[in-house]
This record gives sequence, C-alpha cells and structure tokens, in this order.
Amino acid sequence: MKKTLIVGTVAYDDIETNKGNSGKILGGAGTYIALACSHFESKASIVSVVGGDFDKKYLETLKEKGIDTTPIEIVEGGKTFYWKGKYHKDWNKRDTLATELNVLADFNPIVPKEFKESKIVILGNLHPIVQSSVLDQLSKTPEYIILDTMNFWMDTALLELQKIIARVDIIVINDEEALQLSGEESLFSAAEKILKLGPKYVVIKKGEHGSMLFGDGQFFVTPAYPVNEVIDPTGAGDTFAGGFGGYLSEQEELSFEKLKNAIIFGTVMASFCVESFGTSSMERLSKEEVFSRINKFKAFTKHSV
Amino acid sequence: MKKTLIVGTVAYDDIETNKGNSGKILGGAGTYIALACSHFESKASIVSVVGGDFDKKYLETLKEKGIDTTPIEIVEGGKTFYWKGKYHKDWNKRDTLATELNVLADFNPIVPKEFKESKIVILGNLHPIVQSSVLDQLSKTPEYIILDTMNFWMDTALLELQKIIARVDIIVINDEEALQLSGEESLFSAAEKILKLGPKYVVIKKGEHGSMLFGDGQFFVTPAYPVNEVIDPTGAGDTFAGGFGGYLSEQEELSFEKLKNAIIFGTVMASFCVESFGTSSMERLSKEEVFSRINKFKAFTKHSV
Repeated sequence: MKKTLIVGTVAYDDIETNKGNSGKILGGAGTYIALACSHFESKASIVSVVGGDFDKKYLETLKEKGIDTTPIEIVEGGKTFYWKGKYHKDWNKRDTLATELNVLADFNPIVPKEFKESKIVILGNLHPIVQSSVLDQLSKTPEYIILDTMNFWMDTALLELQKIIARVDIIVINDEEALQLSGEESLFSAAEKILKLGPKYVVIKKGEHGSMLFGDGQFFVTPAYPVNEVIDPTGAGDTFAGGFGGYLSEQEELSFEKLKNAIIFGTVMASFCVESFGTSSMERLSKEEVFSRINKFKAFTKHSV
Repeated sequence: MKKTLIVGTVAYDDIETNKGNSGKILGGAGTYIALACSHFESKASIVSVVGGDFDKKYLETLKEKGIDTTPIEIVEGGKTFYWKGKYHKDWNKRDTLATELNVLADFNPIVPKEFKESKIVILGNLHPIVQSSVLDQLSKTPEYIILDTMNFWMDTALLELQKIIARVDIIVINDEEALQLSGEESLFSAAEKILKLGPKYVVIKKGEHGSMLFGDGQFFVTPAYPVNEVIDPTGAGDTFAGGFGGYLSEQEELSFEKLKNAIIFGTVMASFCVESFGTSSMERLSKEEVFSRINKFKAFTKHSV
C-alpha cells in the first residue's frame, strides 16, 4: 500500500445553500481530499493544523476511515480555521461571509520522518510557500505530486505559485482559474501554456460540466457524473482531487490512460460529496456505492459511433 | 435515400462578435439545418419563405449542396426576415439589435405534394402553429419528427407549443429552455416532465458543455466537440439539429444507440459551424473533415474505466 501525503486545511465550515444551513461543521480541503482518498488502497496522512477548539470527535472520524491524523498539529491556545459562506442558486457563485484564518495564519507544516518518503503527495489549496515547504522536507522524490490551487493565490502570490507549479507532476485547476493563470481565452491555449510552466499533466475541472485532461500530447474530455439534486457543493473540487489521487495510488504506473480513469473516479467521488452538507455523504460512503456509480457512468457515456 | 422535410427560416443575419462583424449574410434555422443535413445521404427540402430582396445566389448555394429549395416561397413584393445581433464575450449571452419579421409575419407554409410522404420531418424553431400546420399537411405519418423550439414560444404560445410537442418523436432543446418549459430545477426532472408531454426522446443541449439524451428509460451524456476558437455561434443549435437528423436519416431504425451517435454527429457538425461567421464553414465542409473529427471525438472521449 502506497503512502499518500496530503497537505491541506482541516477546518470548520458554516454553509448556507438554498437547501438549508449546515451550522458549524467539519470542513477543509485536507479533510475532503483525505476522505476521498480513504476509499482507495492507500495510506493517507494529513499534514495540517487545528486549534484547541477543534472537536476531537472529528479526528476520530478521520481515523476510523484509516486516515493518519498524527501530522495534524493541534495548537492548544489557538482557534481552528473557520469559513462561512453562502451559495447562490447558481452553484458556481458564492459569497464568503466570514474567513477567520486563526491558526492557519502561522501554519508551518512539519512532515514527520515516516512520511518524508511518501510515494504520492497531494498539495491541497494553500499558500504556495506552504506547499513548497512540504516538498522541501521530502527526503525522496515522490512518484508524483498533485497540486490544487485557486485564483486567490494567482492574485496574491503569482510568482510563488508559478514556482510550485514547476515542481509538480499534475495540476488540478478549474476552468476560470486556468484562464486567469494563463491569461488565455480558450482552455486549450490555457492548458498548453500551463504545461509549459512544468507539470506533465493539466486537469481542468468544469464543475457540473465535466473535466479535461491535457498532457503527453493527448487530450481527454468527459462529462461530470450527473447529480439529481445538489445540496452543498463545498469540497467537491477537493473530493475530486482526492478521488483522482486515490485511484492513481492503486496503479502501478502513471499514464495518460490511468489519468483518464482517475478523472472518472474523481467525478464519481465528487458526485457523492455534493449530495449532502459537508462531509457526511463521504463519511458513510461504501465501496459498493462507488463502483455502482462507476458502472452507471460507463453506461451513461458509452457510445459506438 | 430518405426524404427529409425541413421547416425553418431562411433569412438575413447581421452578426457582431468580439471577433468581428459579418455584415448582412445568409442565415436562418432552416438554412443551417439543411446545410448540416446535406452532408448525409438524405434528400433535404426546406419549406420556408423569403422576400423579393433575397439574393438568388444563396438559393444556388443551397441547391449546389443538393438541397431542394423549391418549397421556399418567394414573396416578390416582400422583404426577407432580418436579424441583427451582438454576442457578448460570454457566448451564451447576446443582444438582439434588430428583428424584422417581414415576410415571416404572414408565413403560411405549403408542403408540396411530393413531400407529404417525407420519412423524416425536422421542425426548426418557428411559431408552434406554423410547425403544426406542416404536420397537418402530411399524408403519411413520418418515421419520426424532430422538433426544435425556443423560450420565446414558451413565453408567448405555451399552449400551442405543448400541443406540437405532443405530436413529435424527438424534441431538441437547450438546458435553460428545458428548465423553463418544465418549471423544474434539475435537467433530470425537466426531461422526465417533458417526456410526459408526449415525445419519445428529449435531447438537452448544453452548448459548449455537451448534450444529454433521455428516453426508453435510459440516459446518455456527452461532452461537446471542443473548439479552439469560436468566431460566431449563430446557427450552432440548428446545425446540431441538422447533423443529428441527418445522421438518423441514414439509419434503418430509430433506437437509443442510434440517437447517441446522432448526438455526436450533431456536436461535430456544430463545431464546424461556430468556427466562422455564418454558414461559410458549413458550405465548404467536406465529408473527410467530418469523419476526421468524429474519429478525434472518439479518441478524446474513450476511456477504459
């Protein structure tokens, strides 16, 4: 079983959608990535930080899923990162009502010795300097590094972001961010430009409209797994990245063909994520349900043209 | 070779996009549908109306493509339907700068005797009463009838629209229109409700994001053929419908499997349409180019998950 090192926030979210309110619940990119990963045969660990106010039952939840939480630093006197947001009827739009960085403001990730040789590294959305610091601590080059990021870092830390992009194998990014990062007007030109920054593969997520994969001079496009009713889109992108990385962790080698499959597993995992508030559907998800949707996805997309 | 009867506008368009201005050019739903159809083994005829101002060279253009233009009525003293529009940078938004119905205002379609037994009927976007009048004139039930429509008729002639929907086999509609027509919030619920109105199949077009097919208790979803640079999206939906119907006209029977393929041919035809102003790319398109993109589409979407 390969070791997967995840770096990302473990946090409190407070979410309002047109389907209701979540109240203060478990959230964070690291949480969603790890939960998605936990459905695959890999040993996932999260490097993160929380405050003394963080409910220990959530750490238990993660541990029960086989996730190693020992590299989550607990700052006893501090408060956990908190995000409060409200989604519009158009799920792609949301208002941030509150962001309290709290212990995240001084987060200095420490990679425990036993994870310095992790085979897979997934860098969740965080400051590029924090992401770089994790890579600097590795004692052995991982088989591959997956990077997630967001437009906020393009606005505030572009140079550092470009540096970390140059160090990873796969970047997972959404359509708007790909256009912003590249300054291009089409996703094709954007992907071409981003590949020139260094990564071998670019995955462009288009939310409910599916994903695109670029690299090895090839191209793949797929619809998303169609969801009947979205309850809360929070964490969908992270869950996609976690499912994507989790699937890859089970594979012998990294290839364009395997990456295609990884995208399909990513979209299926994300489809569960959005069907309930927060992490609840990801917590109770079974392997059977995952494979049932994978089979449905095959049926939904198969054609003989 | 099956006879395909197309009803739709043959018109003048005047288009502005961020790539330039078209000036006054050939347009109209009937034109685009027929041009797309002409790339398949079917004998397409357009029932339509133009004014005496309509440049005869355009009729020649259509005839050269094997399209039968004899059912296009020419009102010598009248003016051709004219639409002037401007697209936003977001291609899904456009402003209508001018609409002159002209001869279309009194359009009373006459189906020539030799087309009353057409195997396939494609009802392009027109007033539902005009669409119904065409069906009333048929002497034999066609193998299938394809209907295209738009939100304008939902706002102004909903009852008549529902009546014509009940008479067709396949409705082709875009995502926003499907939600409006059904009053539902998800495309799945929308499709279910529209199927209850009568048609056997519902095709929901999502523009650059692909299409969905519902019917026979089955579901299919596919991305669109990815286009590097859109020049002018005018006629893409009509071209999709024409390619869709054209492909079906070559098939022995109507089945879910064939409809899937028809959608892929529709999206490939539409991909050519948007790459130049007006009908120009559809006019010069070769069969080789179509099949080259069909093969690329297969490669782009194939997976072995």
